[in-house]
Amino acid sequence: MKITIVGVGLLGGSFALAVREKYPKARFVGVDASPVHGKLALAKGLVDEMKPLDEAIAVSDLVVLATPVNIILELLPQVLDQLPKGATVTDLGSTKELICQLVDNHPKRSQFVAIHPMAGTENSGPGAAFRELLPGKNLIICDREKSDSDSLKLVEALFSDIGMKLFYMSPQEHDLHLAYVSHLSHISAFALGLTVLEKEKDEQAIFDMASTGFSSTVRLAKSSPQMWAPIFDQNRTNVSQALADYIEFLQQFKAVIDDQNLQDSFEFMAKANQIRRVLEGIDRK
Amino acid sequence: MKITIVGVGLLGGSFALAVREKYPKARFVGVDASPVHGKLALAKGLVDEMKPLDEAIAVSDLVVLATPVNIILELLPQVLDQLPKGATVTDLGSTKELICQLVDNHPKRSQFVAIHPMAGTENSGPGAAFRELLPGKNLIICDREKSDSDSLKLVEALFSDIGMKLFYMSPQEHDLHLAYVSHLSHISAFALGLTVLEKEKDEQAIFDMASTGFSSTVRLAKSSPQMWAPIFDQNRTNVSQALADYIEFLQQFKAVIDDQNLQDSFEFMAKANQIRRVLEGIDRK
Repeated sequence: MKITIVGVGLLGGSFALAVREKYPKARFVGVDASPVHGKLALAKGLVDEMKPLDEAIAVSDLVVLATPVNIILELLPQVLDQLPKGATVTDLGSTKELICQLVDNHPKRSQFVAIHPMAGTENSGPGAAFRELLPGKNLIICDREKSDSDSLKLVEALFSDIGMKLFYMSPQEHDLHLAYVSHLSHISAFALGLTVLEKEKDEQAIFDMASTGFSSTVRLAKSSPQMWAPIFDQNRTNVSQALADYIEFLQQFKAVIDDQNLQDSFEFMAKANQIRRVLEGIDRK
Repeated sequence: MKITIVGVGLLGGSFALAVREKYPKARFVGVDASPVHGKLALAKGLVDEMKPLDEAIAVSDLVVLATPVNIILELLPQVLDQLPKGATVTDLGSTKELICQLVDNHPKRSQFVAIHPMAGTENSGPGAAFRELLPGKNLIICDREKSDSDSLKLVEALFSDIGMKLFYMSPQEHDLHLAYVSHLSHISAFALGLTVLEKEKDEQAIFDMASTGFSSTVRLAKSSPQMWAPIFDQNRTNVSQALADYIEFLQQFKAVIDDQNLQDSFEFMAKANQIRRVLEGIDRK
């Protein structure tokens, strides 16, 4: 089996490493706009060879699009156009609605499987890839009924064989949930980082006074703008609503503090404490 | 040497454990409003005996106030009134301005040392205490010139002997910096927790779709309301300004997303990425 990874970074590279362990005879072709990333991916053993996209598509059983979501929108129709009969293309993008919509009427739509692995770190590039990123995490599959059964089976088998748990939903549901449980937390971290950097011109003061709590809350502010700008753009209706909800809670809390209303302040936090149950569930995963 | 810990929770208990290792002959007296916490603190070996506050003060070389900051405001004048000559009282509160102001003209002001260890977790109570919490972290000492040299020396020696690095500043500076590097990140996490809980009535969806990034960003939303409501209240001028700055950045980012301005969205995040340098400094600590 030949698998092409388009975008040999954190996600594509980690997928290749995990599959290689289960299927040592599978061959991996890398495609990347950056020659440096290509060299690093080969040196790290993520892929066996680098090829131009056209050549890679022609020889692949499976093409995995693991680029930023704006590039997925560019490449997916082209890959489908060129995809050999019996081959499959899948994408790992963090948005699903626009991507699915774009190829909804493509004559080869059934060879495409739209997925999103719920995993990542704040780091990017081939150097950030590691075999343990995906195993134990969840995989969302969207519009499963629009994929033919062989393509769906191949993708389901590979991802569940590397230890992922499969979930199914519509692209609309996916994008709405993701705005709240992922996209919003990234924006809250980016804005927190900016607020502190703006105030504390003297970074030494942050070093000296910040504790591990700050470090954990702001960690996602290290995430890649190349990856996130197009995600927020493609999911802007949901993200904008999530941000509006978040700002509303912050304004309520600010009013409670300004009014010295300790009872409401207490209740606000006691309610937020209920997230403990949810986190215990996530940490058990 | 006899040390009284008032509030045998995460911070007071962790201090006792660290000091016990360096000074095995020091004796620890615990004071706590909760009989259950008293039993747990004894069972865990945080303190050697539990006593009522009056009795504990009478026999102590050092009294450490490790309660929520509203209780520190209540207890500090009383402890100073009763404190034997030659003894010292210190407080570990996360706010410093009101606490210092309150006893500024107390006849025994010089026996008080105002400090704040830059360490904590989202957990609380005696069970959460652990010996490694404070070593390697920073300690802020405020208004050092108002403490007599013996009291100051004792506190500096104990905290630097357990591996903390000492910093000095005014209570005003302390509270301003803390609003940004600590209090704001707690509020951002509480509000994020509430926003997601409010939207996702079905907690299973959060379990299934949230990743470790969400978990890290929202972690502080598990923090204790008893502890944090009075901190936000005592530092409300700074916290309110920090929140206003944060909300302003969020609104700017929302406008950028609504306008589909990918260039500005990219630049917003690239600027926030500079927090990476700061985090590397914190993580090296």
